[in-house]
Amino acid sequence: MKIDILTLFPSMLDGFLVESMVGRARETGILDLKIHNIRDWAKDKHQVTDDRPFGGGAGMVMKPEPLFEAIEELRSPVSKTVFLTPDGEPLSPTLAEEISREEHLILLSGHYEGVDQRVRDELVDREISIGDYVLTNGTLAAAVLVDCFSRFIPGFLGEEKSLTHESFTGNLLDFPQYTRPANFRGLSVPEILLSGNHKQIEKWRHERRMDLTERRRPDLFSKFNESHR
Amino acid sequence: MKIDILTLFPSMLDGFLVESMVGRARETGILDLKIHNIRDWAKDKHQVTDDRPFGGGAGMVMKPEPLFEAIEELRSPVSKTVFLTPDGEPLSPTLAEEISREEHLILLSGHYEGVDQRVRDELVDREISIGDYVLTNGTLAAAVLVDCFSRFIPGFLGEEKSLTHESFTGNLLDFPQYTRPANFRGLSVPEILLSGNHKQIEKWRHERRMDLTERRRPDLFSKFNESHR
Repeated sequence: MKIDILTLFPSMLDGFLVESMVGRARETGILDLKIHNIRDWAKDKHQVTDDRPFGGGAGMVMKPEPLFEAIEELRSPVSKTVFLTPDGEPLSPTLAEEISREEHLILLSGHYEGVDQRVRDELVDREISIGDYVLTNGTLAAAVLVDCFSRFIPGFLGEEKSLTHESFTGNLLDFPQYTRPANFRGLSVPEILLSGNHKQIEKWRHERRMDLTERRRPDLFSKFNESHR
Repeated sequence: MKIDILTLFPSMLDGFLVESMVGRARETGILDLKIHNIRDWAKDKHQVTDDRPFGGGAGMVMKPEPLFEAIEELRSPVSKTVFLTPDGEPLSPTLAEEISREEHLILLSGHYEGVDQRVRDELVDREISIGDYVLTNGTLAAAVLVDCFSRFIPGFLGEEKSLTHESFTGNLLDFPQYTRPANFRGLSVPEILLSGNHKQIEKWRHERRMDLTERRRPDLFSKFNESHR
């Protein structure tokens, strides 16, 4: 998949591009991921990318000209332009899987109070939020989105891990995991996990997931109960 | 604030550490942020940090020994240890503000299927989720958390931007922003914003927020209406 990230802080993702599984996917050619500095499309002497909002208010708004020029240069007949913003659709496994089937994505990371609405109206196909909170800019959000949907691209996870078991399968949080040693400083692994009784282990794990979800995420627990009525 | 991030992919955050406002906050001393490689505390010949889960299942679980050693070396009488996991409390502006008042944070980024539960039971004070989705590892989640709560640390945002206006004030999405030029390729800014009538502008912006929230986030819109009954 071809991915172009537009940001005012391109170096912020230096490590992300080479390390971990995203770096490996770039090496093997599964991801063709490039970072672009929005400032390169600001044509005036001072390369200004923001200005004060019409109608007043604190903060600065990203100007339309550099963003139109950037996106018009990068886009292709198959590209989709995604704007990362807390106003967007919430990122979910379903949304990530959908996005993972695109051929070419242009990811626009905002900064300041936002971007000129004409960019959103004319050029953006989809707006996505990684959560109900505010970041200093959308660059990390673009990285989170790439990391999340890449897991659904065939070949990305390799042999290391399958998608078969996932948090959020059926709106439940995960069960507790244990590995060796069975006794660490007097702290033991629950006996059931050493029993070899797979049916009982499944039952125990499901109960732990129900307990944790009810306690910590009553919102998810309600959804789970609704879908199992 | 002192922050220690524990991860298996320390270089992933290379750019994040020097660029943008987090980089500036490290220079001015507002943040004392260090990244540590969990593998440095794995004492066996092959520096193994993971093993298969007791009770069966796909994937690998992070072993207790290196994590106990790492956290015991880094922690201080005032430190709080936070584990980044989709099982955690959802990150929100309220949670970010609370976290921003800590003196010393140890942020543990998971990988594989999770970490041995004894680490979570014995050493972790708080578990936080940046959203209901799965990443290849928790390193980006730690960066998102730092970026989010740092905005509440006095001096971090500097003169550039205040926290006065924020998305999610009162559970509503944001209003559309426009900046110069007033006419760009025939696309005009809404006339109301050029009127200078601040009362009408406030009204228009509030209506836009209500419209967008109702359309895109009925869940937030319900919360808004409940809190304004």
